[in-house]
Amino acid sequence: MTTAADRQRVYARIAERFPEFVEGVCDLARVPTISARREAETEGATATRRALERFGVPARIVPVPGGPSLVVGEVGEDPRRPTLILYNHYDVQPVDPLDEWTHDPFTPVVESGQLFGRGIADTKGNLVAQALAQATIREVLGALPLNLRFMAEGEEEVGSPHLGAFARRHPGLFRADGACVEAGSHALDGHPQLFMGNKGILYVELRARTASVDQHSSLAAVIPNPAWRLLAALRTIRDDRGRITIPGFHDGMARPTPDALAYLARNPFDPIVYRRVYGAKAVLGGRRRLDRLKAYCYSPTCNIDGIVSGYVGEGSKTINPAWAAVKLDFRLLPGQRPARILARLRSHLRRGGFGDLEVIPRSAFEPGATPVSAPIGQAAIAACQEVYGRAPGVFPWAPGSSTTGYYTSRGTPVVKLPGVAYVGSRVHAPNEHIRLDDARRAIQLAAAMMLRFPEFRPPRRSRR
Amino acid sequence: MTTAADRQRVYARIAERFPEFVEGVCDLARVPTISARREAETEGATATRRALERFGVPARIVPVPGGPSLVVGEVGEDPRRPTLILYNHYDVQPVDPLDEWTHDPFTPVVESGQLFGRGIADTKGNLVAQALAQATIREVLGALPLNLRFMAEGEEEVGSPHLGAFARRHPGLFRADGACVEAGSHALDGHPQLFMGNKGILYVELRARTASVDQHSSLAAVIPNPAWRLLAALRTIRDDRGRITIPGFHDGMARPTPDALAYLARNPFDPIVYRRVYGAKAVLGGRRRLDRLKAYCYSPTCNIDGIVSGYVGEGSKTINPAWAAVKLDFRLLPGQRPARILARLRSHLRRGGFGDLEVIPRSAFEPGATPVSAPIGQAAIAACQEVYGRAPGVFPWAPGSSTTGYYTSRGTPVVKLPGVAYVGSRVHAPNEHIRLDDARRAIQLAAAMMLRFPEFRPPRRSRR
Repeated sequence: MTTAADRQRVYARIAERFPEFVEGVCDLARVPTISARREAETEGATATRRALERFGVPARIVPVPGGPSLVVGEVGEDPRRPTLILYNHYDVQPVDPLDEWTHDPFTPVVESGQLFGRGIADTKGNLVAQALAQATIREVLGALPLNLRFMAEGEEEVGSPHLGAFARRHPGLFRADGACVEAGSHALDGHPQLFMGNKGILYVELRARTASVDQHSSLAAVIPNPAWRLLAALRTIRDDRGRITIPGFHDGMARPTPDALAYLARNPFDPIVYRRVYGAKAVLGGRRRLDRLKAYCYSPTCNIDGIVSGYVGEGSKTINPAWAAVKLDFRLLPGQRPARILARLRSHLRRGGFGDLEVIPRSAFEPGATPVSAPIGQAAIAACQEVYGRAPGVFPWAPGSSTTGYYTSRGTPVVKLPGVAYVGSRVHAPNEHIRLDDARRAIQLAAAMMLRFPEFRPPRRSRR
Repeated sequence: MTTAADRQRVYARIAERFPEFVEGVCDLARVPTISARREAETEGATATRRALERFGVPARIVPVPGGPSLVVGEVGEDPRRPTLILYNHYDVQPVDPLDEWTHDPFTPVVESGQLFGRGIADTKGNLVAQALAQATIREVLGALPLNLRFMAEGEEEVGSPHLGAFARRHPGLFRADGACVEAGSHALDGHPQLFMGNKGILYVELRARTASVDQHSSLAAVIPNPAWRLLAALRTIRDDRGRITIPGFHDGMARPTPDALAYLARNPFDPIVYRRVYGAKAVLGGRRRLDRLKAYCYSPTCNIDGIVSGYVGEGSKTINPAWAAVKLDFRLLPGQRPARILARLRSHLRRGGFGDLEVIPRSAFEPGATPVSAPIGQAAIAACQEVYGRAPGVFPWAPGSSTTGYYTSRGTPVVKLPGVAYVGSRVHAPNEHIRLDDARRAIQLAAAMMLRFPEFRPPRRSRR
């Protein structure tokens, strides 16, 4: 057991070693690992192993059949101590629209206390932060009070299509006393945000085709237009208030627990901040902060990620296009299953007379969450309290999706500690960046979690 | 007055001179005059003048303030003879999607009796056809029985935004005893199609913006999605049966006259052919041929020419986009005015709570048509009968749009003679082409119209 004074020495040393974090993350962020295009996979895995080994974590590159490799780094193998998984991914989202970036996305730049580059917030920065945290503990205190298992995969941003099968063949890798699955965030004022899991996601593409080639638009009088056809189908999926109208969609969906609501009521975060952060013209959920927070956490969504048909260039072109396509994502709450939602979407379209539409599932993540009352949640709150001097804002789960379900489904409790990002990090969008002050705290917090987690004596996990 | 035997000599000579048509149109079609991008305007005007002068038509390039020049060629100035305007345009539609072309769009190629290239069907081929027709009449018969005024502009495909003001300053150029405005077409079996005018068009772009930048798609729970916003507006404009639901949209719209319907009933064309031509999965209008023909001619449309929002590349990207845009064209019947429809669209959106949408008018053409009972219609029918040995299919107007209103509004009767194209010409689409057999007939028909039009003694037009 460490003393508070020991831990303060660790936090102070992290502040001194902070330049090593910047150096490490820049090295990693220069590799353009866009998984949607399967770019730089080998280079990405190698750079990730290098990032771990730079901080004394022995790491190996584990092939994942059909997909990019998993990088696994392990420190400590003492069976009397708890084991904490630190899950991240080394792949990133596409960078377009490129002309909206003020810096090259793969040439990291520090400017006004911010570090810009694709993937730095989501989530290369967190991997380097955790690596530096454990190295500093070992430097200052000589040893870690727990075992760590770093896991970094290369296809999270496309829904980890190959990791599910891999996890079924190697379930032990996904079982531990706890897992930090990617990371939480910071509010604009630096207040830490702790998430107890993730929403799930089903990502599908719908395509309508009404002809084999585009035609002169005058023929719209007799040849159906595919975009109108697609729109007619879309309006049966979601109403104008955003409520999803697929029968059975909400079956089994988690409802707020009193405990989760009590934490939410004390959570100062207000989604109204997105007016400032993203220039949002409106913020949904209601006039009260808590209603907006509840919408943020408890509204499943059907979002249009992209839609395209016909001529989208400059000027005008008069055509009746041959086809139209939309990319949709459904964010799901615990209790909802992507495979079941997909089946219901298909039968709903068929029954509504839209059997001609092609439904192409693109990716899915199960939702997954752990109650905040669990030891891992209480340890995370204690760690935040120590580093930030205040309790974190606690969310029942993050609005985004990740591999969380791979852990929770194997009995591993999960948490997303406040990481290097903040709500203005423009994750998945142009000009992704982090604030260096947030990052410094996130590294200290990662160390605090490593030091405090064993105190909360999680019950020994059952070996299944 | 010519004799039938004289005219047959002209038609025979046209068949001999046909290679000059191919050569002339290839020369013109090599110039990439895409008006949506204002490309090759000067080169296009020069090549057009060259195409006319090649056939002995003295031509001049007339500047149009703000736009590409008008090319005017005149033959004959005898005030006792009728004057016929031959209107065409030397600009073309954009060529994308380029990968669907089997030949380079601006390298004309003859293959299996077909001539491929952007703009050859619409409408560079018709200009060259008419030029060769008058040259052959003069060669065989020594003189023309009427005056001709060739007019070729360079921005028809974007709605001739500068020609309206030009026409108001030079109304005399647009007044004559008749005008052949571009051309009609051929059915698959080669049957000639005669149109007595054009539908009008209003082309607008609608844009929704809900934020200043794209966001992670999990934020769709609290930030409205612009594509859903746009779709909500679109569903108030048109119902699922294709009927436009803007109040007042149909006010003043022409209804079928008994005369027009009688011609339509005898017109063998069946839009069902588009199943074969464009691979259309369905053809609208009803189970009877005449119902489909009536839909083709008398249904105003609201067509989606293009729609775009968010990520439309390969794979998946999870974003809530910042904006969405749709390009719409409304095809209008005589009696409907683009400016009035635009005003009604704007107020409809505003009243429906969609005042946040940006409405950008892109282009417009007034509808315009002449009754088939008029001398120009009867002359065209007689000319078709002579060249094709059968009556043409007569349509009250073409489903497409052009500058027709510039002529009809100045008292000039209009007609669209069957031209070089056929219903499979893929006008505005990849692999635009004509069949050489159709083209040969179209040249003969142009000559027949020049020779027969004076017989029908149109009443002297009033000089206004």
